[in-house]
Amino acid sequence: MKILIINGPNLNMLGKREPGIYGGETLEKINREIEARAEILGIGVDFFQSNIEGEIIGCIQGAQCGGIILNAGALTHYSYAVRDAVSSVDTPVVEVHLSNIHAREEFRHKSVISGVCAGQISGFGKYSYILALEYFKYKLEEN
Amino acid sequence: MKILIINGPNLNMLGKREPGIYGGETLEKINREIEARAEILGIGVDFFQSNIEGEIIGCIQGAQCGGIILNAGALTHYSYAVRDAVSSVDTPVVEVHLSNIHAREEFRHKSVISGVCAGQISGFGKYSYILALEYFKYKLEEN
Amino acid sequence: MKILIINGPNLNMLGKREPGIYGGETLEKINREIEARAEILGIGVDFFQSNIEGEIIGCIQGAQCGGIILNAGALTHYSYAVRDAVSSVDTPVVEVHLSNIHAREEFRHKSVISGVCAGQISGFGKYSYILALEYFKYKLEEN
Amino acid sequence: MKILIINGPNLNMLGKREPGIYGGETLEKINREIEARAEILGIGVDFFQSNIEGEIIGCIQGAQCGGIILNAGALTHYSYAVRDAVSSVDTPVVEVHLSNIHAREEFRHKSVISGVCAGQISGFGKYSYILALEYFKYKLEEN
Amino acid sequence: MKILIINGPNLNMLGKREPGIYGGETLEKINREIEARAEILGIGVDFFQSNIEGEIIGCIQGAQCGGIILNAGALTHYSYAVRDAVSSVDTPVVEVHLSNIHAREEFRHKSVISGVCAGQISGFGKYSYILALEYFKYKLEEN
Amino acid sequence: MKILIINGPNLNMLGKREPGIYGGETLEKINREIEARAEILGIGVDFFQSNIEGEIIGCIQGAQCGGIILNAGALTHYSYAVRDAVSSVDTPVVEVHLSNIHAREEFRHKSVISGVCAGQISGFGKYSYILALEYFKYKLEEN
Amino acid sequence: MKILIINGPNLNMLGKREPGIYGGETLEKINREIEARAEILGIGVDFFQSNIEGEIIGCIQGAQCGGIILNAGALTHYSYAVRDAVSSVDTPVVEVHLSNIHAREEFRHKSVISGVCAGQISGFGKYSYILALEYFKYKLEEN
Amino acid sequence: MKILIINGPNLNMLGKREPGIYGGETLEKINREIEARAEILGIGVDFFQSNIEGEIIGCIQGAQCGGIILNAGALTHYSYAVRDAVSSVDTPVVEVHLSNIHAREEFRHKSVISGVCAGQISGFGKYSYILALEYFKYKLEEN
Amino acid sequence: MKILIINGPNLNMLGKREPGIYGGETLEKINREIEARAEILGIGVDFFQSNIEGEIIGCIQGAQCGGIILNAGALTHYSYAVRDAVSSVDTPVVEVHLSNIHAREEFRHKSVISGVCAGQISGFGKYSYILALEYFKYKLEEN
Amino acid sequence: MKILIINGPNLNMLGKREPGIYGGETLEKINREIEARAEILGIGVDFFQSNIEGEIIGCIQGAQCGGIILNAGALTHYSYAVRDAVSSVDTPVVEVHLSNIHAREEFRHKSVISGVCAGQISGFGKYSYILALEYFKYKLEEN
Amino acid sequence: MKILIINGPNLNMLGKREPGIYGGETLEKINREIEARAEILGIGVDFFQSNIEGEIIGCIQGAQCGGIILNAGALTHYSYAVRDAVSSVDTPVVEVHLSNIHAREEFRHKSVISGVCAGQISGFGKYSYILALEYFKYKLEEN
Amino acid sequence: MKILIINGPNLNMLGKREPGIYGGETLEKINREIEARAEILGIGVDFFQSNIEGEIIGCIQGAQCGGIILNAGALTHYSYAVRDAVSSVDTPVVEVHLSNIHAREEFRHKSVISGVCAGQISGFGKYSYILALEYFKYKLEEN
Repeated sequence: MKILIINGPNLNMLGKREPGIYGGETLEKINREIEARAEILGIGVDFFQSNIEGEIIGCIQGAQCGGIILNAGALTHYSYAVRDAVSSVDTPVVEVHLSNIHAREEFRHKSVISGVCAGQISGFGKYSYILALEYFKYKLEEN
Repeated sequence: MKILIINGPNLNMLGKREPGIYGGETLEKINREIEARAEILGIGVDFFQSNIEGEIIGCIQGAQCGGIILNAGALTHYSYAVRDAVSSVDTPVVEVHLSNIHAREEFRHKSVISGVCAGQISGFGKYSYILALEYFKYKLEEN
Repeated sequence: MKILIINGPNLNMLGKREPGIYGGETLEKINREIEARAEILGIGVDFFQSNIEGEIIGCIQGAQCGGIILNAGALTHYSYAVRDAVSSVDTPVVEVHLSNIHAREEFRHKSVISGVCAGQISGFGKYSYILALEYFKYKLEEN
Repeated sequence: MKILIINGPNLNMLGKREPGIYGGETLEKINREIEARAEILGIGVDFFQSNIEGEIIGCIQGAQCGGIILNAGALTHYSYAVRDAVSSVDTPVVEVHLSNIHAREEFRHKSVISGVCAGQISGFGKYSYILALEYFKYKLEEN
Repeated sequence: MKILIINGPNLNMLGKREPGIYGGETLEKINREIEARAEILGIGVDFFQSNIEGEIIGCIQGAQCGGIILNAGALTHYSYAVRDAVSSVDTPVVEVHLSNIHAREEFRHKSVISGVCAGQISGFGKYSYILALEYFKYKLEEN
Repeated sequence: MKILIINGPNLNMLGKREPGIYGGETLEKINREIEARAEILGIGVDFFQSNIEGEIIGCIQGAQCGGIILNAGALTHYSYAVRDAVSSVDTPVVEVHLSNIHAREEFRHKSVISGVCAGQISGFGKYSYILALEYFKYKLEEN
Repeated sequence: MKILIINGPNLNMLGKREPGIYGGETLEKINREIEARAEILGIGVDFFQSNIEGEIIGCIQGAQCGGIILNAGALTHYSYAVRDAVSSVDTPVVEVHLSNIHAREEFRHKSVISGVCAGQISGFGKYSYILALEYFKYKLEEN
Repeated sequence: MKILIINGPNLNMLGKREPGIYGGETLEKINREIEARAEILGIGVDFFQSNIEGEIIGCIQGAQCGGIILNAGALTHYSYAVRDAVSSVDTPVVEVHLSNIHAREEFRHKSVISGVCAGQISGFGKYSYILALEYFKYKLEEN
Repeated sequence: MKILIINGPNLNMLGKREPGIYGGETLEKINREIEARAEILGIGVDFFQSNIEGEIIGCIQGAQCGGIILNAGALTHYSYAVRDAVSSVDTPVVEVHLSNIHAREEFRHKSVISGVCAGQISGFGKYSYILALEYFKYKLEEN
Repeated sequence: MKILIINGPNLNMLGKREPGIYGGETLEKINREIEARAEILGIGVDFFQSNIEGEIIGCIQGAQCGGIILNAGALTHYSYAVRDAVSSVDTPVVEVHLSNIHAREEFRHKSVISGVCAGQISGFGKYSYILALEYFKYKLEEN
Repeated sequence: MKILIINGPNLNMLGKREPGIYGGETLEKINREIEARAEILGIGVDFFQSNIEGEIIGCIQGAQCGGIILNAGALTHYSYAVRDAVSSVDTPVVEVHLSNIHAREEFRHKSVISGVCAGQISGFGKYSYILALEYFKYKLEEN
Repeated sequence: MKILIINGPNLNMLGKREPGIYGGETLEKINREIEARAEILGIGVDFFQSNIEGEIIGCIQGAQCGGIILNAGALTHYSYAVRDAVSSVDTPVVEVHLSNIHAREEFRHKSVISGVCAGQISGFGKYSYILALEYFKYKLEEN
């Protein structure tokens, strides 16, 4: 199985931006840790990051994989276009967030994407991605 | 007269995505039918599709035509930037939707674009585009 | 095929009332133009106008036709009874408006009827009716 | 004792309209069953149905009876005029609904009439009327 | 000058209905007092009352007079159709209410009609009508 | 058939608490009257009252009967846990209220439970329970 | 009888400020016309104007008269302190406005004062004051 | 390390209640699977279930463990008392839900508890618990 | 005179839980100080604490005393059942809070209980209870 | 210690205004009782009353005392300027109200001042002031 | 050119009040710096400060100058009377704030005055005034 | 010092689009004037314009300068992604708008970006940029 991990706007700034909220590790470093864990689980992973909504939509549309792990960044809170991209594919999508969006500013409490995702994992830093990976592994084993 | 038909995010997925809502024909096929009808009406048509909000804005800004038929996809519901692009040009813009947005999820009921469009046609599948075309034809005949 | 065109309260004042918004042609004159177009399309048309909500409901309930074109006037914005009449019949109903209701006062943005109509055409003056007619023609040809 | 049973807009469509929601029996048939039950209870019943708000108001105003059973149909949700008619008479009014309005679309949850009625019975199909009848019988016995 | 006085739903119940709120005089009696005052002012008055929204609309549309005094009853709070009727005529319309609608239930605070009326007089019982009459007299003298 | 009658918080105070709203009879006395009526209808009745939300939930979950009559007291307005208990069982549940909750304070207008109940009977004092009982009897006869 | 006419903030600017909305006559001139009319009606009038909320409150508290005509200017929309001053006196208070506040900006639609006033007269320019005067005259004659 | 798994109201009905939403396995069976996984991870687990809000609060307050996994059931949506219990302890709490609460009824979108939890895992059935367990394991390894 | 002091959920955690907000003294210690002050005032005091809403309701219902001091904890913000318990007894109830609930999170600003209490004392730590005690003393002296 | 007691608009009307709500004693008489109690407590008290928001602000700004007891009257509900005055001084401010503002009209439930006050005492008539005094005494003893 | 600089309630406390938000310089000192800059720009400046809304209104009404720089303090958020004063004069008014009101408490985000001002400068401390001054200079040069 | 000036969607249409609102000068011309002023102030300026949200985010992230002047166009009202980009950099950002956004359509009143900007300058046409420049100059001089 192949899993695609998509990161939205500003996640390229991880490690540099507000480490109090998002932690001190860079996206690159987190991706390496995900890769390491994926290898243990016997899952292949691909990574994609963009600040451009339309490129994230394109990436979701073109995904050839068993599952998508999507951290849409701030697009989470208003991009109905990303939501529609998620509904347009059959691949299950797991929504993840580094920080607990429900414990931050009011506008971050609402995700316009979650209504069409399999589930949401929010608040576990890099482990949010890794737990999503584990989930896909469990589902795989189940079938 | 030349009419420009602009399709926003995810409309490239037509025929593949949720056929229960959007029908089973691809965008390509619908465009061919529009073209056929346009020929009968004696109107030239150009087509543009993008998943990127800024490209749609650019396309509206640069339009050299007698009218625009705009299906902004999910951008309809939040892109005030597309709205401003519509106000920035003198070309009349007709807003169209394949499905009846007023009969779907609450968030689809509101269009932030319609306030600056000539009118809205919503719910007639591919005919939404074709009716918009007819409208431009009628207006042309009127003058 | 027979199409029934229903006009709600105050539409009998067309041509006399606020021509800046609704145009200078009387309902009678618009109906004649619709009739002319219908004849070309090979469709029969019947007309009904009333200021009384209950009569519009009765007219919808009793309709013996292939489709209804409904301009419910201001009832559009609060008459759940008209909405229920629309759901109570199998005939497809197309909601039309002369002006673009989405570009006027806030209270006109919401239609309580659109949720049970096939689609909505709003903002094209008399052409709103004619485009609805064309739609029924296209659907007829499709079958 | 005489009880007046008033049915508002679209209830004349019972049995024909959305049987999944309102059941398959016609208003005529339901009225016969109510009549049969009323006879057993020793209560006289009169029936009135109209699609016109003003006629329902007139009927309430003119009622010469010991109680009114009112199914105002969709007027329930916006007709403050029907509400005022109910307050204008001393006769106790019981509000009834065939379907459970609290379990349907959001707009049906609110009744603008219930604030001035004796009580509300909602969701029991034809039995909503019959239970209201029983209530009037119990009250009669009480005095 | 001729003034038309229109009373909406339930105002035929005046004197019978909730005298604590609306006073103990019948509509007939109030009309006689208005007539008496009108005679002194040298103004002719016509009266119209209906419980049916569509008839009130028709009456406004057909009015041949120098001014309309409109007590729309509970229609005040939701009938955008009556509002449109008021905008459809050039005759100035003064909105009146017997009770002070701003000091009663929340739903009575909002008038959907006042936005297109010359002014509003609310809370003076029968004098609400008579003050409106005086206003038309003053305006007449002004010209 | 056996019917279970569940009363929520503060209903043990009936007859002592605010008799102007809830009447002067104790819960015990009302239960005796229900029992008497049930006997005539040939239905068995069980009674349960608790001030503790969790015990009401437990009672619903464990119910072995043909129907439940539920007066959840003030829990009606916020206890989504009671709501979930109602959905978790196949037994039909009728929601009852002594007073007409739609004619009291704003916060009592909304029931979070009614969306999953068969129907609601509100405002008939002890007869609210008895009418619910009659309903179950009618349904029984129907099958 | 003596009537006190109180004008709130910015009404001293009448005739100078936005004549399109408030007319071209100064407060001084309007007061003279009110005085003239009062003399004919046999009523004495006193005038008070202040831009300071607390002075208006003091003026209402100290009023020794048969009635107050109050145009609180923009304080109408937020000054609960003026509202409390009105409730603190037994003198009947009539709320007046030059322009029809219900036909202007949203924030002017709500008066926090009207709930404790005898009535409201809005939209008749200087005649708003004069009609209020007439009302007090009628009431006087009534007793 | 010891982890405490707390289940709130109605979760004792798992497997019996709405299997379409919550799956067909009983709580007992899910707990066995969690236990099995915990053993592999080298973590001890304790289980607690109650329908009574106050008992869940007491259980949180008394917890002697390295972490709590809390599925508060419907209490999630209104129990500020459970929220306060979570803040009153230093133990990190992970909020879990079997179904994706963000993709269900509007009232389930809001958790009043998440603001004081470490994170939220929602929508993965029994794996929601197991992923939370994995998280605690990762955190343990981290230190 | 006897006063009953009721503490709701999580107040048993005082001194242990968030001392920055609630102070560092345990409930036990605060109760001792209240007792000491009560003795000076010549008032008897009883204490009750529970995390279970239904037990608090039961305690209020059964209270045999001259007054209740109620700190309902987080139940303050949603428990209409506790509110109803307060209305069901004649004993005056004073609502108290340790912290100033109006200066904390939005959800703590609203008390659903205060509408039926004699008054509210909020923000004075343990003195909130003692001031309530003083109030009952003053009232006692008054009679 | 010196305490400053500030009363806002209309509190000079105490004893004259709505005694059903505010009691029959004048402000003067209440101040004397406060003084008497202050003397017993060994606290000096100063009094200030004004109907003018700006004077209350000035009084707060210039206060030379150990504490302020502030009854801002209706300014409580909208005067963010009084709120800012409270934040601009280091002196602790206790907000008091004669009536229980949480049990009156909706608009009185919200205090824009309480967010920056030490605490709120509401509903105890003159004792609201005296309890505030006691609080300052207790705090004094504490240090 | 002469510019009038008006400061509203509590701005006389600058340098003493919450220096973390408003900076440590007194109003006097800021005025001196503004004066110095004005001299360089060749503009005359007058200063006015008051805590009393009505005096600010009077000052705006009487202004004889080329422009007004207005920091209305907390009146910004509710004083429609100040708003009306601004509309009543032809002089252009620039609204300034020391702190960025859009980045503070929710209630500070809305200015009821900005709708009638030339523009808003918010968040630059004393430079907010100086930038406004520069603006008037630029406009002067433009003509 | 170097300042980066970023213009969002549709600002490339300046001079062509709605000159009544945005003025008749092109962006090119405004940039030249800013440059001229910057030279006088001894500040270097760079310009960037894009219609694509993601490119604006990238530009903010990559900025190597002493300050950013950001006119995000319509993105101001919904792009939380641009907001996050602003928080992700240490460079101070000044938000500017040509027109006074607070005096236009309701949706333009809210900026989702201002909460993380140093300040906002709105309504001064090209001078909005120049005033921001002056601000950076003043800050520079201050250090």
